[in-house]
Amino acid sequence: MIIDCHGHYTTAPAAHSGWREAQEAAFTAGRPAPPYPGISDGDLRASVEDSQLRLMRERGVDLTVFSPRASAMGHHFGDEPVSAAWTRACNDLVARVVSLYPGHFAGVCQLPQSAGVPIARSVVELRRCVEELGFVGCNLNPDPSGGHWTSPPLTDRSWYPLYEAMVELDVPAMVHVSAVTNPSFHATGSHYLNADTTAFMQLLQADLFRDLPGLRFVIPHGGGAVPYHWGRFRGLTDMLGRPPLAEAVMPNVFFDTCVYHQPGIDLLFGVVDVDNILFGSEMVGAVRGIDPRTGHHFDDTRRYVDALGLSPADRHKVYEANARRVYPRLDTALLRRETAAA
Amino acid sequence: MIIDCHGHYTTAPAAHSGWREAQEAAFTAGRPAPPYPGISDGDLRASVEDSQLRLMRERGVDLTVFSPRASAMGHHFGDEPVSAAWTRACNDLVARVVSLYPGHFAGVCQLPQSAGVPIARSVVELRRCVEELGFVGCNLNPDPSGGHWTSPPLTDRSWYPLYEAMVELDVPAMVHVSAVTNPSFHATGSHYLNADTTAFMQLLQADLFRDLPGLRFVIPHGGGAVPYHWGRFRGLTDMLGRPPLAEAVMPNVFFDTCVYHQPGIDLLFGVVDVDNILFGSEMVGAVRGIDPRTGHHFDDTRRYVDALGLSPADRHKVYEANARRVYPRLDTALLRRETAAA
Repeated sequence: MIIDCHGHYTTAPAAHSGWREAQEAAFTAGRPAPPYPGISDGDLRASVEDSQLRLMRERGVDLTVFSPRASAMGHHFGDEPVSAAWTRACNDLVARVVSLYPGHFAGVCQLPQSAGVPIARSVVELRRCVEELGFVGCNLNPDPSGGHWTSPPLTDRSWYPLYEAMVELDVPAMVHVSAVTNPSFHATGSHYLNADTTAFMQLLQADLFRDLPGLRFVIPHGGGAVPYHWGRFRGLTDMLGRPPLAEAVMPNVFFDTCVYHQPGIDLLFGVVDVDNILFGSEMVGAVRGIDPRTGHHFDDTRRYVDALGLSPADRHKVYEANARRVYPRLDTALLRRETAAA
Repeated sequence: MIIDCHGHYTTAPAAHSGWREAQEAAFTAGRPAPPYPGISDGDLRASVEDSQLRLMRERGVDLTVFSPRASAMGHHFGDEPVSAAWTRACNDLVARVVSLYPGHFAGVCQLPQSAGVPIARSVVELRRCVEELGFVGCNLNPDPSGGHWTSPPLTDRSWYPLYEAMVELDVPAMVHVSAVTNPSFHATGSHYLNADTTAFMQLLQADLFRDLPGLRFVIPHGGGAVPYHWGRFRGLTDMLGRPPLAEAVMPNVFFDTCVYHQPGIDLLFGVVDVDNILFGSEMVGAVRGIDPRTGHHFDDTRRYVDALGLSPADRHKVYEANARRVYPRLDTALLRRETAAA
């Protein structure tokens, strides 16, 4: 089977994003937010049937690890209660989609982060999503300020309360930033990629995984700039007197395949061990168009991976086994899938 | 001949960096800086003979486009006079090295930037370096705050006074950040690469080169994450309704070859037109070690380029002709070289 580790609910019903706008306006005006609107199962079905599910069918993807729209997490906006309420609404909506299509989606939650608020305050929502909603992982924003990078590095002990809960629950985090308010950056064009590179370098510099050997991170968008500069990172590891990447970082860090052309995917698989690569497409997501050079969607990453001509064993790793190893709670999700199919 | 477009004076005499420390301490203490120390020609020769010049000889590099140490530009520190004095000292030292070895170096200046100070105030130093010291280009820091990204995008009109002077003087800028004070980032491991990616995306989003068709930028470190994600950038260009990269960006933007492994160089040449690639090594620089997999220095990028098996015409472009086109004032520098050799 084929598992896509990186899908966002970018097509949520307009009532959902409309409520966010109302919530933001209310916060700005100092009023309480309006009640969250009723969204029917029909609305939810309509929001995925002809987009996410159709594309999955067309591309032969069986299961998508599905999380709220990353750019809309908006951790920079408002305050802790605003972020918490929006996060619960987003996660609940993903949970409903998963329950409608248990064979096709597994849930990953966003966290109710806010710049300056201790990450320990996000643990309650992580537990709720994993233990009550059956989610298999979370998205962790290393820069809830929205492009101002005011939080300590991911290796700082202030993040450990979340990590300890992740290890206990046996769920990984995808390191994923959200929208930017800093005009230097474009969310999907530079901020996302910068965050991936930044996170990897932070992990290279410290002993986080010695402290927490059970912690696992997925760095999306093919690892940002890292595989392209793999020699630079190997050289810096050496210069900084750090243990080799293969020992100190790569047992715990995984890249997805959200790289939207064949040469990029070729390079990724050429330099990164196949055990560290999870199939992902980020669809329906950052780049929605069709590449005039190929006639196919830029984000139809399965085509690039298929074109590698991997051995059956490696293919199985990239498309399924690595995802099940990194997200062990997928086993339960897959059991639901079988039950649904029976 | 072989021109390396990206070399920094990272081995400057200790008295030079010692003065910077004294200048910083004086500023912090509210005292005037001590006088700049005497540095002899012998000190300067000793600082490059067994490092930069030896490595150039060993690697068959004829001429290095040589600028002050990037991480030491330190635009974030102090105030405008501090940055201006340090910048003049750095540029003067590079000019002395160039005059000692006119056949081997061509000067590129750092600019006396400070966060919040209008870039127009840097034009005097640019003119001095180009018109009086014979420099061929400048390094432009898109983030003089040192990792807090408080400046407007490079496409903002506030940068235009510098650009107009660059066009008039017919010199390009390498977009190059400096040290970071933001603990999220590692200078050479993430900040440099992020800045490259950020700058490219800014250029993609706006019409800077329509306003200033004679403006040229070199984006170092192989273009950051850009070539690896070339499909993403092509797709975003389309999604944002921007003109094709080949029309609106690439006539004015060039990448160097500071990518420290063969697969990265292969990808760079696979996706970026050879007319847009300038040979560079960033040596003696970010990564000084030897790759145990090859037995050669990570930053010996000539080996990777040679291994591509380019046609003689393409080889000539990458090693010489593109650099002379982007830095037309190199012609004068090369004339000096011939005079020196005669």
